[in-house]
Amino acid sequence: MRIALFDQYRIGIVDGASVRDVTDVTDVIDSRWHGSPYVINELIEHFDELRAPLRAALASAEERSLADVTLLPPIPRPGQVLAAPANYHAHIAEMTESRYRPTNQQALRSPGDVGFFVMGSGSISGPADAIELPPMPGRAFHHEVELGVVIGKPARGIQAGQVADHIFGYLILLDLTLRTEGEQQEERTMRKSFETFTPIGPFIVTADEVPDPGNLGLRLWVNDELRQQANTRDLIVGIDELIEQASSVVTLRPGDIYATGTPEGVGPIEVGDVVRAEIDGLGELSLPVTKRSW
Amino acid sequence: MRIALFDQYRIGIVDGASVRDVTDVTDVIDSRWHGSPYVINELIEHFDELRAPLRAALASAEERSLADVTLLPPIPRPGQVLAAPANYHAHIAEMTESRYRPTNQQALRSPGDVGFFVMGSGSISGPADAIELPPMPGRAFHHEVELGVVIGKPARGIQAGQVADHIFGYLILLDLTLRTEGEQQEERTMRKSFETFTPIGPFIVTADEVPDPGNLGLRLWVNDELRQQANTRDLIVGIDELIEQASSVVTLRPGDIYATGTPEGVGPIEVGDVVRAEIDGLGELSLPVTKRSW
Repeated sequence: MRIALFDQYRIGIVDGASVRDVTDVTDVIDSRWHGSPYVINELIEHFDELRAPLRAALASAEERSLADVTLLPPIPRPGQVLAAPANYHAHIAEMTESRYRPTNQQALRSPGDVGFFVMGSGSISGPADAIELPPMPGRAFHHEVELGVVIGKPARGIQAGQVADHIFGYLILLDLTLRTEGEQQEERTMRKSFETFTPIGPFIVTADEVPDPGNLGLRLWVNDELRQQANTRDLIVGIDELIEQASSVVTLRPGDIYATGTPEGVGPIEVGDVVRAEIDGLGELSLPVTKRSW
Repeated sequence: MRIALFDQYRIGIVDGASVRDVTDVTDVIDSRWHGSPYVINELIEHFDELRAPLRAALASAEERSLADVTLLPPIPRPGQVLAAPANYHAHIAEMTESRYRPTNQQALRSPGDVGFFVMGSGSISGPADAIELPPMPGRAFHHEVELGVVIGKPARGIQAGQVADHIFGYLILLDLTLRTEGEQQEERTMRKSFETFTPIGPFIVTADEVPDPGNLGLRLWVNDELRQQANTRDLIVGIDELIEQASSVVTLRPGDIYATGTPEGVGPIEVGDVVRAEIDGLGELSLPVTKRSW
């Protein structure tokens, strides 16, 4: 299933260009959560009970055109967003040679060596939101497309072989990053935490529809120029090992997101650009780049 | 007011060694939030409407001994936890000379130069929780005591002079950190994100009871040895400027926490120790250090 959040936190199942509103089917979820940004975290937590009623309800659910609704970030308030620092060899190679080379050498090492870092959840945005660039003359803002893993069941101290049981699904995640030529000036996690710098979506694709997350093509265009093209088979540390490692540090909860790292091809975006990203089977995000609205 | 969360997410006002249960007074808060970890974020957001009824209800509210309740982290699910990298000169000096000197030089620079970093909210724990050390032979775990600022009203692009209007209150925050002699091996934000590595509490003290947050003594003992003793007047970047800067990056929301940095005196803790921290007017946290329970 492709699960979207839209309008006033309504829950939808996406099929092609339409969305079926199944908000009223989800009465397994305590009514307290309906109409709130946390409803999706609760849906994820209780999905075992919801899967059958959702499927049964699909035939009769109200169908609307995607063009007539406003898609929200599918997880507006993830409890945690964790991220792999550098998880594709070709990206490490390009950054090592880049004039935007990280000051912090750990940023060029794989999660197998250095673990994860934490992203600010206030930077989450959705398929209907622009990427807003703050007024910082002389700086660059780089695009990074990544496969995002959505945690389904609480995961604490689990082994790689058990990880699949704890994954709810997958989504496209962009990790916009402030960069400076020469020495990077600011803390890395702040450089990635500007508002709208972590677009996710357009929906969550449940894990049963992603037979091999370790073999998904990722592509990102700026306007019509293909900038990033890679495959998750080139992840240095695979999904199972990333989640095993993170779960040895802290309990991962339903709705938490793990950003698995960006491949090569990162580069600047500017006001007026359109950034378009797709991952096999996970849909497409197409976002205008604007000046900050505030 | 000293606002605590206890037992099944009940809301209490602490006075000395007792707590008055005001959960039922807070009907301004949508009932959906009651009994959930988010109730305190909602209380903070609607506090202007709640202040008078809370005061009025205090006389008749059920009074219980603090010894008879279980205090929870006063904000179990902050939307974001932001932190100053190095914000006391004497701490920068000690780390520069330390055998645990950071690999990442940005970790020794003040937020005026490098901004904030992001902490993992899954590491939040409370006054009744032990600090649990993971099994990592040969590594050290260091204590850091910090003044935590709790955001009250949404803050986006605000100026330093307006910051006080956006602060709800203050609390003690400990920032436990994994360190390695010689080169630090892991990403810094992961080294601070182990479960139970961010104790907060014992309650939130509302800003009206903290006349000068820029002049608060902080102290931390391990067992009965005084390890850290400082005053927030020695913050390199003060609270107003920290919040101004963060609000220029991302909207801060009610219940978000900003950890203002630790002073000098950081050092290792071990299983069997008791860590005790106090900040003038903000109470005391006293936490046993144990082996991890899982």
